[in-house]
Amino acid sequence: MKLLRFGSKGTERPGLLDADGRIRDLSGHAPDFAGENVSLAALDLLREIDTDALPIVENPGRIGCCLATVPNFYCIGLNYTLHAQESGMPPPSEPILFSKATSCLSGPFDPVVLPRGSEKSDWEVELGVVIGATAYEVSEDDALDYVAGYCTVNDVSERSFQLDRQGQWIKGKSAPGFGPVGPYLVTADEVPDPQNLRVSLDLNGVTVQNSNTSDMIFGVRQIISYLSRFMELRPGDIIATGTPSGVGMGMKPQRFLKPGDVMEVEVEGLGRQLLETVAAR
Amino acid sequence: MKLLRFGSKGTERPGLLDADGRIRDLSGHAPDFAGENVSLAALDLLREIDTDALPIVENPGRIGCCLATVPNFYCIGLNYTLHAQESGMPPPSEPILFSKATSCLSGPFDPVVLPRGSEKSDWEVELGVVIGATAYEVSEDDALDYVAGYCTVNDVSERSFQLDRQGQWIKGKSAPGFGPVGPYLVTADEVPDPQNLRVSLDLNGVTVQNSNTSDMIFGVRQIISYLSRFMELRPGDIIATGTPSGVGMGMKPQRFLKPGDVMEVEVEGLGRQLLETVAAR
Repeated sequence: MKLLRFGSKGTERPGLLDADGRIRDLSGHAPDFAGENVSLAALDLLREIDTDALPIVENPGRIGCCLATVPNFYCIGLNYTLHAQESGMPPPSEPILFSKATSCLSGPFDPVVLPRGSEKSDWEVELGVVIGATAYEVSEDDALDYVAGYCTVNDVSERSFQLDRQGQWIKGKSAPGFGPVGPYLVTADEVPDPQNLRVSLDLNGVTVQNSNTSDMIFGVRQIISYLSRFMELRPGDIIATGTPSGVGMGMKPQRFLKPGDVMEVEVEGLGRQLLETVAAR
Repeated sequence: MKLLRFGSKGTERPGLLDADGRIRDLSGHAPDFAGENVSLAALDLLREIDTDALPIVENPGRIGCCLATVPNFYCIGLNYTLHAQESGMPPPSEPILFSKATSCLSGPFDPVVLPRGSEKSDWEVELGVVIGATAYEVSEDDALDYVAGYCTVNDVSERSFQLDRQGQWIKGKSAPGFGPVGPYLVTADEVPDPQNLRVSLDLNGVTVQNSNTSDMIFGVRQIISYLSRFMELRPGDIIATGTPSGVGMGMKPQRFLKPGDVMEVEVEGLGRQLLETVAAR
């Protein structure tokens, strides 16, 4: 299933994309997508619904973030060798973990607002993994059994807030709108191999990031198993699995987002984001 | 008001402490405490309830975490000069921010389970601030207007996971049970000055942390205003405001938690936690 949410910000309704690419309204049959409502058990109930009987949404308007909220927005840092290199840091010997404020969640076509005082806002296309069952101390072999689905994530990052404002990256990762997620939550059964997906980002029509999840240092299985030794993962948690090379911070000269820039952000099979950068009001 | 939650883990009910120190059942009148349900507006509705008419809970059993969930569990690092000193780090020039996994939330009398492989689990009493209204780019002057209330927090920390496992502290802060919060969410009107509260922690009956929030480097007003420049704070978010000196990592020799240790954790006026450390099953 390709799950999505449509409607104005704050009043989105849950829907899905049918076999013909039309949006069907799920709001009469399912609660909004978040937490337990995207657990493996909840997804199994959705699968029992006769899609053809659902109302077609002719004019969906805005497509929102595919998750209404998340219990945690985890991110893995420096998980592609060339990105670690361009960041001037050694490839990590175990996964680097940080988080984004959950209030940064945003839709895949919403404007990305540059926060007041930002001079170094940057882009990061990533494969997002959504957890479908409580996971603590799970093995790598079992790890994918805990995945609800996958989605496209742009881990928008203000490099000065992240790196120059007294340690811990969360400060540069959390501004409102810095977490575009979606358009689709694609259930795990439709992603047979999460380690063979193209990840790419075009800036103003020029491809600046272009890699494949096969290049990850730590794959999805390893990440889930590793994190589950330090914390209990819960249904609806999202894990952004790291970005490949090609971010603005790594360019020579460095190149950061300015108002009017347009990002096209895609993970193969998970849908494409189209994001315009705007100045703070 | 002193708000609390009572009952078995996962099925707690909301209640409050009345003027005579008895627990009154709010479950017929209020949804469980979390997110918007602890917003300033929601608290105003609670104030309209005639407390004397609420059922007295004669045998509350377990007292749980005073919040069912939190959108974010933010923490400020090194916010007391002597604690920065004992940690071997310079006092920060601006607040250091990190987060705990929201799944670490725990009750004030629940056992603290040492995670498998932990050799350096440590204690940290802290003043917790619960946000009551959406806050973005708010001034220090206005900051306290966004506070729903205050609570006692123990920011339990595994130092090896935190510091020796490839950067970013969240890894050592997030194990299940590493976030005892409560017993009470004390509404802001009952805490006239959050910068004049004793914070203390006794380990096996010996006082090891003993300070006052007046010793904070960055006070609650500054913390809220500062964070609100980097992220939108939301109702129900909790901010642990840093721990004073006296943690195990700072002792000579260092002294970490072992099964059977008992922590008594208190912030003046906000209630006392009693936590026994146990081994992983």
